[in-house]
Amino acid sequence: MTDLANDTTPPVTGDAIRAAARRIAPYIRRTPLLRLPAQALGTPCDLVLKLELLQASGSFKPRGAFNRMLSAPLPKAGVIAASGGNHGAAVAYAAQALGVPAEIFVPEITGPAKAARIRSYGAHLVQGGAAYDDARRASEARAAETGALQIHAYDQPEVLAGQGTLALELEEDAPELTHVLVATGGGGLIGGMGAWYAGRANLVSVEPEGCPTLHTALREGRPTPAPVGGVAADSLGAKQVGETMFPIARRFVQQAVLVPDDAIREAQRRLWEACRLVAEPGGATALAALLCGAFVPPEGARVCVVVCGANTDPGSVLD
Amino acid sequence: MTDLANDTTPPVTGDAIRAAARRIAPYIRRTPLLRLPAQALGTPCDLVLKLELLQASGSFKPRGAFNRMLSAPLPKAGVIAASGGNHGAAVAYAAQALGVPAEIFVPEITGPAKAARIRSYGAHLVQGGAAYDDARRASEARAAETGALQIHAYDQPEVLAGQGTLALELEEDAPELTHVLVATGGGGLIGGMGAWYAGRANLVSVEPEGCPTLHTALREGRPTPAPVGGVAADSLGAKQVGETMFPIARRFVQQAVLVPDDAIREAQRRLWEACRLVAEPGGATALAALLCGAFVPPEGARVCVVVCGANTDPGSVLD
Repeated sequence: MTDLANDTTPPVTGDAIRAAARRIAPYIRRTPLLRLPAQALGTPCDLVLKLELLQASGSFKPRGAFNRMLSAPLPKAGVIAASGGNHGAAVAYAAQALGVPAEIFVPEITGPAKAARIRSYGAHLVQGGAAYDDARRASEARAAETGALQIHAYDQPEVLAGQGTLALELEEDAPELTHVLVATGGGGLIGGMGAWYAGRANLVSVEPEGCPTLHTALREGRPTPAPVGGVAADSLGAKQVGETMFPIARRFVQQAVLVPDDAIREAQRRLWEACRLVAEPGGATALAALLCGAFVPPEGARVCVVVCGANTDPGSVLD
Repeated sequence: MTDLANDTTPPVTGDAIRAAARRIAPYIRRTPLLRLPAQALGTPCDLVLKLELLQASGSFKPRGAFNRMLSAPLPKAGVIAASGGNHGAAVAYAAQALGVPAEIFVPEITGPAKAARIRSYGAHLVQGGAAYDDARRASEARAAETGALQIHAYDQPEVLAGQGTLALELEEDAPELTHVLVATGGGGLIGGMGAWYAGRANLVSVEPEGCPTLHTALREGRPTPAPVGGVAADSLGAKQVGETMFPIARRFVQQAVLVPDDAIREAQRRLWEACRLVAEPGGATALAALLCGAFVPPEGARVCVVVCGANTDPGSVLD
């Protein structure tokens, strides 16, 4: 245990998340819930789905991007970000809405749906490097040249506070929840949600076996590089979780479970077959934990699954 | 004007719809709303989308199917229905849930996604005839042989009362609405919704130019055969509106507008691009009226679009 684990002041407070919610409200969508009986998706219990895949730009990411961009003066050079794709789309969307230029760095694994979406919002796209972390280094070098404001995909307090607004909405709309399942890559979403819930609901981190970032960090006691691979690598393929989220995760994430790629694909198929929802692999990862038994809800649990992204070819859900 | 237009007792009452809502509640989903600013989909005003495409079986149809099946003793021969596909899927779904056999007749224009869905619920599928009306006649002949309970796609009071539960939910969740846009084929949905709203909101019927059923009926003063064609024919291709809904429509449908197929396709694309929603052509038809100007909301209107079905190949939204 480090000192951080005993620190009673989290790096992101409930007040910061409330302020973020007010700041970003004109720009983001309050996404709805879908309540389902267990038999709908073949899960061990009834479910609440938080339909964050319907968010502007196709994932939860604009919450953090807008909060970061509305918390600082925006330089004329605009904003710059590195991303597996969803954060880049969100920054490009927010930059267009706020009238500043955006430059987005993505790795080669970023698929055509995400790349097209980033360009469609008028951003300058630079694609190169094997994985997210390579794009991150390239974007930092470029930011030093241009003076653009860096919008980190997960490791800035304003970004975490923005993502935490999802939990604020969820607690207002479904106060009965005991367990919330969230997919983790760099950990911005579960970090922000942990800062909001602060133990009032059990947060379960779900990660692909191919990208076990938080699982590895919790085992090692600090953010630690992990492999990047599998079907969800373009949204959950951060090399390691953020420094900002880690102390929050140690306090407020109940467990971090791993799921195989075939359970993620099955979750995508069931979301389509039973609900006519198209989720990308990262967006279906949290559900996969219930389908494959990686997370078994205790008796009486009231469970939410966050369906957090849909930036994929719609036909791919039946592949 | 016929006497029906002055009859103060509608064929489906608010009490019948309230009773239907209680009866079907264990089996159907209360579908959520998505509130969008005008710029999200490029509409002339902010919108509320009723996400009925997330309903069990992929369209609004189980509301009416369950209400009809739970209002009568079910014979051992089970149930029988004719359908363009969505009603057949709903009857098959309901029959599976209630443990009775189902026989479903669909025409040749019914696409593979709908046919596969009907079979997936364990129903016996019979495909033949050019359009819905041919399947309807075949199913009626077959019902006379087997004694199965006929579940009409739109022309029975119990079916209308079931579809009307969508409006009950909508008024509870968005009491501020002044205008609700609904796609019309046989008219079961807008008939049930008209019986619920009874003038408390303006109902706008939207029909493809290729299947102008209510538009034709209102012009002629009675249900009248209309052409069946275009991209939405497999969900909106009834030959004419039902006798049960027509007096309701005369009293409570404010206007019936027509939209071209290209506006329907554009509505499908925008629902995907802006909201990551996959709607079938019939499910996107109501939105099309706002995109092509067939319906222009008056100043201050608070408008809802019912997105009522998604039984299509998900990749087809980008065709």
